[in-house]
Amino acid sequence: MRINIPETEQKRIVIVGGGFAGLTLAKSLRRSNYLVVLVDKNNYHQFQPLFYQVATAGLEPSSIVYPLRKMFQKNKNTFIRVTEVQKIEPELNRVITPFGILNYDYLVLAHGADTNYFGNKKIEKNVIPMKSVSEALALRNILFADFENALTSDDLSEKGAYLNIVIVGGGATGVEVAGALAEMRKQVIPKDYPELDGASIGIHLIQGADCLLSGMSTEASTAALKFLEGLGVEVQLNARVIDYDGEHLALQDGSSIAAKKVIWAAGISGNFIEGLPKNSITGGNRLKVNEFNQVLNLENIFAIGDIASMQSETYPYGHPQVAQVAMQQAKNLSVNFKNKLNDKGPVPFIYKDLGTMATIGRKKAVCDLGFWKFQGTFAWLVWLFVHLLQLIGFKNKLFVFLNWVWNYMFYDQSLRLIIKPKNQKRANDIAKRERQSSPR
Amino acid sequence: MRINIPETEQKRIVIVGGGFAGLTLAKSLRRSNYLVVLVDKNNYHQFQPLFYQVATAGLEPSSIVYPLRKMFQKNKNTFIRVTEVQKIEPELNRVITPFGILNYDYLVLAHGADTNYFGNKKIEKNVIPMKSVSEALALRNILFADFENALTSDDLSEKGAYLNIVIVGGGATGVEVAGALAEMRKQVIPKDYPELDGASIGIHLIQGADCLLSGMSTEASTAALKFLEGLGVEVQLNARVIDYDGEHLALQDGSSIAAKKVIWAAGISGNFIEGLPKNSITGGNRLKVNEFNQVLNLENIFAIGDIASMQSETYPYGHPQVAQVAMQQAKNLSVNFKNKLNDKGPVPFIYKDLGTMATIGRKKAVCDLGFWKFQGTFAWLVWLFVHLLQLIGFKNKLFVFLNWVWNYMFYDQSLRLIIKPKNQKRANDIAKRERQSSPR
Repeated sequence: MRINIPETEQKRIVIVGGGFAGLTLAKSLRRSNYLVVLVDKNNYHQFQPLFYQVATAGLEPSSIVYPLRKMFQKNKNTFIRVTEVQKIEPELNRVITPFGILNYDYLVLAHGADTNYFGNKKIEKNVIPMKSVSEALALRNILFADFENALTSDDLSEKGAYLNIVIVGGGATGVEVAGALAEMRKQVIPKDYPELDGASIGIHLIQGADCLLSGMSTEASTAALKFLEGLGVEVQLNARVIDYDGEHLALQDGSSIAAKKVIWAAGISGNFIEGLPKNSITGGNRLKVNEFNQVLNLENIFAIGDIASMQSETYPYGHPQVAQVAMQQAKNLSVNFKNKLNDKGPVPFIYKDLGTMATIGRKKAVCDLGFWKFQGTFAWLVWLFVHLLQLIGFKNKLFVFLNWVWNYMFYDQSLRLIIKPKNQKRANDIAKRERQSSPR
Repeated sequence: MRINIPETEQKRIVIVGGGFAGLTLAKSLRRSNYLVVLVDKNNYHQFQPLFYQVATAGLEPSSIVYPLRKMFQKNKNTFIRVTEVQKIEPELNRVITPFGILNYDYLVLAHGADTNYFGNKKIEKNVIPMKSVSEALALRNILFADFENALTSDDLSEKGAYLNIVIVGGGATGVEVAGALAEMRKQVIPKDYPELDGASIGIHLIQGADCLLSGMSTEASTAALKFLEGLGVEVQLNARVIDYDGEHLALQDGSSIAAKKVIWAAGISGNFIEGLPKNSITGGNRLKVNEFNQVLNLENIFAIGDIASMQSETYPYGHPQVAQVAMQQAKNLSVNFKNKLNDKGPVPFIYKDLGTMATIGRKKAVCDLGFWKFQGTFAWLVWLFVHLLQLIGFKNKLFVFLNWVWNYMFYDQSLRLIIKPKNQKRANDIAKRERQSSPR
């Protein structure tokens, strides 16, 4: 069965993934003379930089995601299909989904990366990842369920294990979630859980490298460490996790931490789709692309964003896997698609690094903007402003802004809710039944 | 193991359930000389009258629920325990939970009612209930997943089955969800799903009685029917469902409707907790109480709200199972608890009916306030105002208000998100592991 998309005279571009890369490309092609099919397994775009605020009850999921259909309401050449690409058949110019076959003239792979467990199945089974808004929400539920569990336990060591939180990975995600948890321990716990002693909640951040935020400047790394330690986070540098059984986290130096939850932000690995030649896959499970984002030896297949690895002298292992690269590659590729229609040649991609920032807590952030490096309150305001502007949709901006003002004034993330999807099993069953009956 | 709650000289009141009844009672006892333990399986209170707006993507779950702990932050005599009561042992004055044993001097049962499937397991398995915010959220996910499914199906009858929606039950819930779905079909579908024909989405409301909203006035019932038919809802009165296999809904008159989803709002039945004498349970699985809400023959056990059945001449089958009765019974019981401390006798409960209202859609609602009955735009404004006021918390009021203004201005419920809890299985596993290890 074919997925029904109108056949037109326009060439068809199929984009896999509605993240920063795929979405930016689809938006840039809105008024072009192509037919664009955007395929994502979710019906929304997620704003990854704020996942940690969903996990720590500062924001609602709906404030940081945006329905894909709403974004393209006025575009007759854009079609959304909410499904998964299971296989690529390059020789037939088509992809396979559970809903059927989808043909393309050009295929753009922007299906990104997911949590990397470095092949350790036991760790994968027991830790909590944070690479999607649903995972962030699941983490929130576990967090608050554990406070309740600690409250009713009268075994001191068990109580401690419920309260301890370990974060593995000292990149932006790890630093931001550790900071937000430390703020919560300070502001929220004494009010909501007067029966718990805030000091008994251990927050541990485990980093493999010799500094935090290793992509950023020394000033930023140093300030981040100072801010976190000021908030009472126990940071261990040069530390490596070797195992985690759900109760004890074992480190390479022989020490161990008793904790019933470990947040895993230690790295990412490209998502795999079957069907591409093996030699196109390079380090980090990424796809080797040339300077036009063409996948190695494949004329009409492109890769952009986290999944693409464009290796050069400056970036021997490809560009950093961040939103900026994704969006800039998408814009460059859209120019090249438009050039094609005008018989112009493609323009090679050149990355313009606009800077990096991370927030640690209230009035505590670090910014590297070119030569301009600054930390503290002003950096925090810049961080808030930049992230607010980048959110899609006026309503999201408004609601996130109101939430931030609220949290700032009342020291009170108010979304401490354990909303378990009671009926989710049934919902999944129903969805599954439909999926199975669909492709005949 | 005992649940650790400080032992004081105060008598201990254990309240089971943080719905309208239990929460109102706990709040009324905040400054009393009792130690109050509020037990609920969720860590939040849910505002049931707006579930249907969560299900139809008009509001976020977080806007209509409120964390219990936040409500009692300043009360040293109130303790929250997030767990389930599995058994009552009246002769030992204690209840059993997965976290351990909890003693009481007085027990107040306010554990409410859940969906009634009238003993039909097949219906229970296949329909979608709407008695909790999680169920409402699951319904939202199914709704939008089915639009996506319909889009990719090229079998006309299958497509129709994905699009058809049947609502069983013509009470307030059924009427309100049918109306909201019809508004969505009119305003949202043409914009978000231009490939779908709005007219192909059938909305069927099946009611067993000979009118809608059977508790309300004839004026209200008639207006509700007119409003719904005006919105294109196919209402069937005097119709009974006899079976549903997930694909076809069979009615008693021999007809059937092909629909992959059926929303079940046909009735409720009291939640059962083991341990009470059999003769205390009466019609609708409710607990027989006297005019002081004392459960039959049990001196120190009380029942209030949906679970209580106080039978009188005016109410031979007990009071209607609505929020007003619950809150008034809670207030009366709190007075009686306080009287006890002052050696005063108890005051019998007398229900003061303040009126009933239901909304069908934009500018379409019905209100019966005593002799004053009115329908239409003004009724709708009264409905909005009353529900806004009743929400707990200024922030919830503000966010719901902003959402309503937004939806009113832009004809656009903006929360059309299928957020599946990808990691929920793991979250459940983790929570389960903790629960099991907890009670030794």
